[in-house]
Amino acid sequence: MTVEEMATALLAGDRRALARAITLAESTRPDHRAEAEDLLDRVLDGHAGAIRLGISGAPGVGKSTFIEAFGRHLTGLGLKVAVLAVDPSSNITGGSILGDKTRMPDLARDERAFIRPSPSGGGLGGVARRTREAILLCEAAGHDAIIVETVGVGQSEATVAEMVDMFVLLLAPGGGDELQGIKRGVMELADLVVINKADGDFLKAARHAAADYASALTLIRAKSPHWTPEVALVSAAERTGMAEVWDTVERFRAALEAAGAFESQRRDQARRWLWREVEQNLIAAARADKILGAKTRALESEVEAGALSPSVAARRLVDAILKQRPTG
Amino acid sequence: MTVEEMATALLAGDRRALARAITLAESTRPDHRAEAEDLLDRVLDGHAGAIRLGISGAPGVGKSTFIEAFGRHLTGLGLKVAVLAVDPSSNITGGSILGDKTRMPDLARDERAFIRPSPSGGGLGGVARRTREAILLCEAAGHDAIIVETVGVGQSEATVAEMVDMFVLLLAPGGGDELQGIKRGVMELADLVVINKADGDFLKAARHAAADYASALTLIRAKSPHWTPEVALVSAAERTGMAEVWDTVERFRAALEAAGAFESQRRDQARRWLWREVEQNLIAAARADKILGAKTRALESEVEAGALSPSVAARRLVDAILKQRPTG
Repeated sequence: MTVEEMATALLAGDRRALARAITLAESTRPDHRAEAEDLLDRVLDGHAGAIRLGISGAPGVGKSTFIEAFGRHLTGLGLKVAVLAVDPSSNITGGSILGDKTRMPDLARDERAFIRPSPSGGGLGGVARRTREAILLCEAAGHDAIIVETVGVGQSEATVAEMVDMFVLLLAPGGGDELQGIKRGVMELADLVVINKADGDFLKAARHAAADYASALTLIRAKSPHWTPEVALVSAAERTGMAEVWDTVERFRAALEAAGAFESQRRDQARRWLWREVEQNLIAAARADKILGAKTRALESEVEAGALSPSVAARRLVDAILKQRPTG
Repeated sequence: MTVEEMATALLAGDRRALARAITLAESTRPDHRAEAEDLLDRVLDGHAGAIRLGISGAPGVGKSTFIEAFGRHLTGLGLKVAVLAVDPSSNITGGSILGDKTRMPDLARDERAFIRPSPSGGGLGGVARRTREAILLCEAAGHDAIIVETVGVGQSEATVAEMVDMFVLLLAPGGGDELQGIKRGVMELADLVVINKADGDFLKAARHAAADYASALTLIRAKSPHWTPEVALVSAAERTGMAEVWDTVERFRAALEAAGAFESQRRDQARRWLWREVEQNLIAAARADKILGAKTRALESEVEAGALSPSVAARRLVDAILKQRPTG
């Protein structure tokens, strides 16, 4: 399959072509990378109408069950749904714990859904880069909702929040001290807090938790002047509350679009992504170079020991990088 | 005064030499910059014993009064205190609202204290860079406590937290909804929350606020596994509670030092500062170059319009930067 054929099939919504395109974009082989860039050039038109949703939740809150229930609700509305995962822990365990199709059997069999396990290797930076490109490819393939899930290891929530339009924090009712388990700074990222397990014996605890979180959210300044974060109650197991969550997503989008903030947020995210990549690539190039690499390590040691001002070391290193390179 | 003479005077604790050294480090003139680097090389020995304290507080909480009272308490203990300011808003107003010596008349007259207004120009990045070097120079001049204050504009609290050992959030009791005014993410930075105005008619409200914040802090995971953030009550106007605040600072330092975390936090901060400077300098060099600058703007526009993947644009820009440069 040539890149041109892959682009045509992808734009027609072919799932196999989408899967192959993501694999190509995930590869670090230079020839694959060149093909992936060619492909991205062909399929990006800058007018994707999809919504990008980040969903974060610790193990045990019912994330897979929620995404399956929510995804099935969306496909039931005739929408195409893609589920991608950001899971830096898959580098350590050697295999991804997210995106596994057996976790979401109904959604995996659904023709309108596309589930992709987390790419492994390269740390959070590498995973994030490939997930960002996977989002663009899923949009090109005509998906209406791209769900990026994360298990919340290290900085993964902040990374996911930087690549989506709306960030959803999934929680389960706990034993009274349920708010203590949330990682620093994660609540601030949430546009919507969803309390799962609002069913059976947990219903009362879930309602109590919802009130607690609604109160906690008032302590935090809103992320956007155009949206006040909300709290929703669902039961993923009983598949209730899904219409309300989707309604909130649509109200969120409408509120931001009315203010012009939906598009401007995407533009800002794209620009930041560009510069982060430029920085990472330049630094990788400096470290990989034999002479520059040695200089880098020596300067880093002096800086860490407090014997050299970082700004002085930075000036020396940048001079070396810019002077070192041969004429192209 | 030669750089060598300045270094000798600075190391002897001469305040005039320190003021001149900071002015030199703040200059962007290449010859000044070279002299500043020479000076930093001469005075940094990597064994500064000072504590670096960040103090943030919104206008009206009594920040100047608190810093004056706290600074006077420290000089009363025989310690040397330096007060630096990070105030990006001084770029807009044309003059700094922080670091003004008339705000702290007693401390300004104190022989053991050194007060420096916020440098202006260059945005938060520029102000941060110069404040970081000013910290190193104040330490070289023998100051025991470096207080970096910020009024909390934009990202300034996070920037200050990245350059200090301990971050103190100063608050005043409000009308019941006092927690709502805290900027997103700032509470998470605090190692210590100080409630000011615990005097007269405000005493009851201050105690109530202290309980509220102590409760709010339990909702946030601790910044360090070696320290649980605390809440203190003071009256800057009546100069009470200062010994307790300093005791907390000393307990904080002892707890982190015992775990080896005090030095490792400084090493990490210095390394991050190095790489941030490298990134900024490289990007500035790319933008300043005639051909690269045009290419940069074109790629940025395509990325913002969603017509080009940021990672593709980044690769092209990095290739151009590395190939563009003449041999040194």
